[in-house]
Amino acid sequence: MSAPMIGVYDSGYGGLTVLRALRAALPRQDFVYLGDSGRAPYGGRDAHTILDFAEQCVERLFEEGCALVVVACHTVSCVGLRHLQRRYAPTPSSPRRVLGVTIPAAQAAVAVSRGHIGVLGTARTVASGTFVTELAKLGPHRVTQRAAPLLAPIVEEGWEDTDIARLAVERYMADLQGVDTLVLGCTHYPLLMPAIVAAAPAGMTVLDPAPAVAARLVEWAGRHPGFAVEGTGELRVLCTGDPAPFLRHGARFLGAPLAEVLHVAEEGGRLAHRERVVVVGGQIVR
Amino acid sequence: MSAPMIGVYDSGYGGLTVLRALRAALPRQDFVYLGDSGRAPYGGRDAHTILDFAEQCVERLFEEGCALVVVACHTVSCVGLRHLQRRYAPTPSSPRRVLGVTIPAAQAAVAVSRGHIGVLGTARTVASGTFVTELAKLGPHRVTQRAAPLLAPIVEEGWEDTDIARLAVERYMADLQGVDTLVLGCTHYPLLMPAIVAAAPAGMTVLDPAPAVAARLVEWAGRHPGFAVEGTGELRVLCTGDPAPFLRHGARFLGAPLAEVLHVAEEGGRLAHRERVVVVGGQIVR
Repeated sequence: MSAPMIGVYDSGYGGLTVLRALRAALPRQDFVYLGDSGRAPYGGRDAHTILDFAEQCVERLFEEGCALVVVACHTVSCVGLRHLQRRYAPTPSSPRRVLGVTIPAAQAAVAVSRGHIGVLGTARTVASGTFVTELAKLGPHRVTQRAAPLLAPIVEEGWEDTDIARLAVERYMADLQGVDTLVLGCTHYPLLMPAIVAAAPAGMTVLDPAPAVAARLVEWAGRHPGFAVEGTGELRVLCTGDPAPFLRHGARFLGAPLAEVLHVAEEGGRLAHRERVVVVGGQIVR
Repeated sequence: MSAPMIGVYDSGYGGLTVLRALRAALPRQDFVYLGDSGRAPYGGRDAHTILDFAEQCVERLFEEGCALVVVACHTVSCVGLRHLQRRYAPTPSSPRRVLGVTIPAAQAAVAVSRGHIGVLGTARTVASGTFVTELAKLGPHRVTQRAAPLLAPIVEEGWEDTDIARLAVERYMADLQGVDTLVLGCTHYPLLMPAIVAAAPAGMTVLDPAPAVAARLVEWAGRHPGFAVEGTGELRVLCTGDPAPFLRHGARFLGAPLAEVLHVAEEGGRLAHRERVVVVGGQIVR
């Protein structure tokens, strides 16, 4: 039997920024990434729908041979992680696990904050209050949240390096007065890091939680042998949307080219169908 | 029995721009507006989900006493109108009807175009190809579509009169070279009319389809007696999301203050629950 893979699940491309950090921390680990790009963005969706999609994606990653699934999407992690952890609780015969990004992000923020933590996220992430709850468990910090519904669409358009991005970031950050540590609570936002740092007042730490998520995973794997096992550094990428733009855009998030994407689609409430899409000499071939 | 009302359904606030035109054309008609703001935006959702939500909303409007429902949302009109019209086909005992906005918008564009029609819409509207299909039925026009996923969120933020709006509009319109008539294929976009007109090259007609939708409805009602019946000009507004922001933002779209919104919520696959929210002396009271 082959070594277990680690699954990384996101609503779209964004989680590739988390996968990038995970691969840097565990270079010989094999990963499977599933981006639910056909049904993204999740930010404006109701909780019921998000849980339904998340179940399908997590189950698909288990079927791909993952024992451990990291929910890289902050919206899903904030809204549905507890549900997923209950539904896919480990059993003696199946030691599967589901981990999220909210707690590692909160811990990283608390480690550097001088008392006032800001959170930028989707409307759904902010409304869930999960960051506020998790930060409160770690100490008496002041927390200011700001929903930033334009930022993920700006990144999806590939408009990170435009005045549109800079002006939108400035407007959102104007509502984060006094914050000393700003958590990027959406996996799209690290691509806006130059604009966010430029708009940040002197002394503000802007925190991409991905390296903290990776560090926590390495630490967790040390305490739970068998989940992270040295392989060949293989990466398999699945998406539910059109694979051609996923191949093109995904490279910006992963920071490396994507050679192949497998397209999966819903059939009878499961992500069952699968089609291979590759790049040959710069051309996308189905 | 009271006179039948006309129902107007949209995924959120946007359809209030259509309702505004309908009320101007039929000032003594009673209307019920349902904005599915709790589950908006629809633009990125899969067709199955859109049809499911649309059925719930149309059924709720029939329950409110509407004989005729106008689907004001271009995304729903492009993706699901035919399904809704089949599912809610008139019967001898129930002469209900569902009308959309795509055909009136296409007809209005053809009436003024010199040969090259542009369409700005959500990703879902553009991908459906419905505008292209309907325009092709009306003559051999060249059609250029552009998905503009940032524009509805910009309007939802209330950022119509910012450089962000102007720059985003300019970028999208740069892809509409040679277009002589531009259809605003999303009910949010009329709020961006100043930015769109400013970015339009000399000679381009920018078309808000709402007046054409209203004119077609008046004409249709003349041929179908009993659907539009003089009442007292009453307006009842329902929404599925938070009614407080709906009251605040809705006025921008309707062009008139909203005094009261009824909150409806999903219960067992139906929009069953209902709660009254009013404004008293500028304060929102539940």
